[in-house]
Amino acid sequence: MSKPSWQEVAQRAQDHRDASIRRVEPHIPPVPDQLPLDRTEIPKYILTTEEVVITQLPAEELTASVAEGKYTSTAVVNAYLRRAGLAQALTNCITELLPEKAKARSEFLDQYYKEHGKPIGPLHGLPISVKEHIGMKDLGLNAGFISWWDKKGTDDAHVLKILWNAGCVFYARTTQPQTLMHLETSSNLYGATTNPFNCYLTSGGSSGGEGALIGMRGSCLGLGSDIGGSIRSPAANCGVYGLRPSSYRIPVEGWSATMAGQEQVVPVLGPLSTSLEGIKLFMKTVIAAKPWLDEPSLIPMPWRDQESYFPAIAGGKKLKVAVLWDDGIVRPHPPVVRALREIVDKLKAIEGAEIVDWEPYDHDEAWKIVSSLYFCDGAQEETDAIDASGEPWRPLSKFIIKENPSVKKLTVADVWHWTSRREAYRSEYAKKWNATATRTSNTGIPEGKVDVILCPVGPGAAPPLDCARYWGYTSQWNILDYPALVFPVTKVDPAVDKIDQSYRPRNEKDEYNHQLWQSGPEKYTGAPVSLQLVGRRYEDEKVVEALEYIQGKIGLPFAKFV
Amino acid sequence: MSKPSWQEVAQRAQDHRDASIRRVEPHIPPVPDQLPLDRTEIPKYILTTEEVVITQLPAEELTASVAEGKYTSTAVVNAYLRRAGLAQALTNCITELLPEKAKARSEFLDQYYKEHGKPIGPLHGLPISVKEHIGMKDLGLNAGFISWWDKKGTDDAHVLKILWNAGCVFYARTTQPQTLMHLETSSNLYGATTNPFNCYLTSGGSSGGEGALIGMRGSCLGLGSDIGGSIRSPAANCGVYGLRPSSYRIPVEGWSATMAGQEQVVPVLGPLSTSLEGIKLFMKTVIAAKPWLDEPSLIPMPWRDQESYFPAIAGGKKLKVAVLWDDGIVRPHPPVVRALREIVDKLKAIEGAEIVDWEPYDHDEAWKIVSSLYFCDGAQEETDAIDASGEPWRPLSKFIIKENPSVKKLTVADVWHWTSRREAYRSEYAKKWNATATRTSNTGIPEGKVDVILCPVGPGAAPPLDCARYWGYTSQWNILDYPALVFPVTKVDPAVDKIDQSYRPRNEKDEYNHQLWQSGPEKYTGAPVSLQLVGRRYEDEKVVEALEYIQGKIGLPFAKFV
Repeated sequence: MSKPSWQEVAQRAQDHRDASIRRVEPHIPPVPDQLPLDRTEIPKYILTTEEVVITQLPAEELTASVAEGKYTSTAVVNAYLRRAGLAQALTNCITELLPEKAKARSEFLDQYYKEHGKPIGPLHGLPISVKEHIGMKDLGLNAGFISWWDKKGTDDAHVLKILWNAGCVFYARTTQPQTLMHLETSSNLYGATTNPFNCYLTSGGSSGGEGALIGMRGSCLGLGSDIGGSIRSPAANCGVYGLRPSSYRIPVEGWSATMAGQEQVVPVLGPLSTSLEGIKLFMKTVIAAKPWLDEPSLIPMPWRDQESYFPAIAGGKKLKVAVLWDDGIVRPHPPVVRALREIVDKLKAIEGAEIVDWEPYDHDEAWKIVSSLYFCDGAQEETDAIDASGEPWRPLSKFIIKENPSVKKLTVADVWHWTSRREAYRSEYAKKWNATATRTSNTGIPEGKVDVILCPVGPGAAPPLDCARYWGYTSQWNILDYPALVFPVTKVDPAVDKIDQSYRPRNEKDEYNHQLWQSGPEKYTGAPVSLQLVGRRYEDEKVVEALEYIQGKIGLPFAKFV
Repeated sequence: MSKPSWQEVAQRAQDHRDASIRRVEPHIPPVPDQLPLDRTEIPKYILTTEEVVITQLPAEELTASVAEGKYTSTAVVNAYLRRAGLAQALTNCITELLPEKAKARSEFLDQYYKEHGKPIGPLHGLPISVKEHIGMKDLGLNAGFISWWDKKGTDDAHVLKILWNAGCVFYARTTQPQTLMHLETSSNLYGATTNPFNCYLTSGGSSGGEGALIGMRGSCLGLGSDIGGSIRSPAANCGVYGLRPSSYRIPVEGWSATMAGQEQVVPVLGPLSTSLEGIKLFMKTVIAAKPWLDEPSLIPMPWRDQESYFPAIAGGKKLKVAVLWDDGIVRPHPPVVRALREIVDKLKAIEGAEIVDWEPYDHDEAWKIVSSLYFCDGAQEETDAIDASGEPWRPLSKFIIKENPSVKKLTVADVWHWTSRREAYRSEYAKKWNATATRTSNTGIPEGKVDVILCPVGPGAAPPLDCARYWGYTSQWNILDYPALVFPVTKVDPAVDKIDQSYRPRNEKDEYNHQLWQSGPEKYTGAPVSLQLVGRRYEDEKVVEALEYIQGKIGLPFAKFV
């Protein structure tokens, strides 16, 4: 029996996916032939009213509704299965649906609820979608490579076990790019995942299946991973919330990726959700299970929301927000600057916040470090995994590996060199942050420092396919290991977001990004514009609390998303 | 001007040291020509009564005495300078004393106390000794290499700044071995540091200058470092307390060592002290300064002693101690087994403790992993640093580098391989620990697990010089990153600790260790016998609390040390 061609493997992958979608009941009708740019409205005309209502509830309301018996778990998961199937037809975001597993699980949960009169756990009946490379027992684990198509999960990933014990239902697995190292989502297994709000743009990546699915409301809570922006880019592009937690808080055991054993830039798992509460629910539930007892790389740190960080205005304790308008390397497109401006104007008008500017500290050095540490083996593992099947290199795989001058086969001494530079850079950044203090406590500790940095998630809204070539606005926080929370703000409006004819780009990267916009703002019509709130290392709780405060005060987002 | 020979550099180092000791006032008289095996009593006959009283107070009583005005800081530091000078003459543990700096500092503190009527901080007037490779501004930083003799600290190490701000006085710097990678302390700069209790034995290492100095009561609190046992071996050999904290709790910025940037086996700084309270005082003081704000590799975790871990006997919550009698590779010498037995017998007699056995889980694999990860560059940096001066390789440098089959120039892929094996091993060990649970809480978390492991610190008491060739009892906890606390128990007594003629060694390492004892237990007369209490990763507080409880209940140590 000869080895199948890569095209044959891709066909199998797609057949497997399509068959799984066909098994959803009630059957999912086809979508219209003629589709608008923005696909987010389509499911509303196809699904039942109850299905639409259910799938547009945020996670916290959905769990509350199931807990009080308003909906059964079965009704909920069926609605999500059907909307996920439509999301696949509209954005190509699914690797497989799991209708049988989801049915068995939701029936079990409904039975439990009937018998005990209460939910089994805080996530009782909540459907959760999962990026494909986060392993599920006996299911595929391809991580975007044709040659890995036959790999199977030997067990459910640690984080999935915790979510399961809390009562959730797994029903959908989502797409990722070749190598997992794109800020978009295209592979030779499934092709490209597109943006729900504008089909000519990317959903972002590498958790772009999650981004598109959640943007389509085919999921209200999903699990992605991030080593350079892979949770945040799709969250931003698709108008949903996404958190890159600090390292070693959320379990990673049981995922599949290249570079296992690499610890210089720690990859993390984290949530994407239609609501900030969904993000928090995920973090609290996973951390409450004390995952460090089973996965010793994790820090035994509870979710610390007992103390309130701010604002206690009477005591002079405001929320101090520093705004990074531009990283000094690639200037963000006009809609991103507008989103920053709109938020800053509103924050300036409230009493509990204080706004200062954040001067970027040598973000160029940060990119040198992080890009040198990504593929320390000269990308040997990625190259082997691609070449093993003869599949073509996707343009963005070429970009980040073959056309990236930082990718070299490093020696151990080289790795130590870059690691020391990373530590030096982290120290300098900490000093800069400390220097924002305005007073000293009586124990000598500086106070009145910046609480969070507000900044772009990328140099623009979602770009067209194959154009996401600037990682700096997200990878910056990976190399510093700062928690970073993405939230939707507004949408691109070419009538407002104009071309700036006078701007002279600073460098090649800036020129590339500038041209993306100059060549036609109308290409971006309707694309979500999101921003990022960044905290110091391990201040995940503070970042979430800060966004809760901001949202409560100024009302976000400023545009309607679904 | 020709380059000085290594012997000339060594002479300079020793001249520098001797000159610093001669500047101590009142002048330190010479020690007698004829000296007993046990040198710990000698200072009592040479120092004034007040000096003896001061230098035999534990850190917590010393700071309390100074805080209430009983002693001046100047009187205290003078007593310690003089006893440290004697400790040098008796054990060769000092690289330099700092009489001028100490005088200026203690006079400042006394003046402050006079003006404000209160101490400047929790360590007001406390003399602290420091291992040489922990940098002090403008002072040498040789890390045991002749070729590094000219290196100078550009600033005080981060941890020293914190201790300084808390009110301490730096007055003594201590010896370390060539490469810092021995469990003894011998270099070509200063020769060998010997054991205070038995001059034919080693003080241990690599923080063996601290061990000997504190064992001699020339310091009550000192700072060492540990990547394979370097705090614990000297603490154990010299009959004092020593804690290897979990990684990333105590700052390391500003130290000097090879392998900067290596993170697979994290080296840590930690305290050695004449008392358990001294250990705790150090940890609480350093952590209270929130060092993570300046050194971002550190975990923002307060010292968590608000909650009591145990025992709440009424609720069935006893202190559950698992005893590791033998690691399955090298059997400990009889006095170590006796120390374990004596403690276990006493613990079994009290109501608040529960004793079980701890089966070692593949400690051989742990050694393979840790020894493969120590010198990933094939020990190129150490080789270069030794060979640059032409100094000879000390026997234990040869042992751990040239005669160690694990030392190879690894590729990045090799490092990832060993790192993944490390993670797998840590997970297996965690599973083993979790499996000691006896019940499940109503949130599904297992309870009734082992609290701490009680075990040897090495395969015997302090060995003769050049014989410390088994790291397994300490490096085991480095590779697992478990906090490990050493405490003195008893002393070797050849009348009680007999030869076992029937034992057949299991392997070459066991044979070597067995012969050390068989060839003459009387060689070890009077040597301290210490044990180690080990907790799970980041349970440093629990380990300290457990020892407090045990000491309070059964009275430790069982022999008189000073």
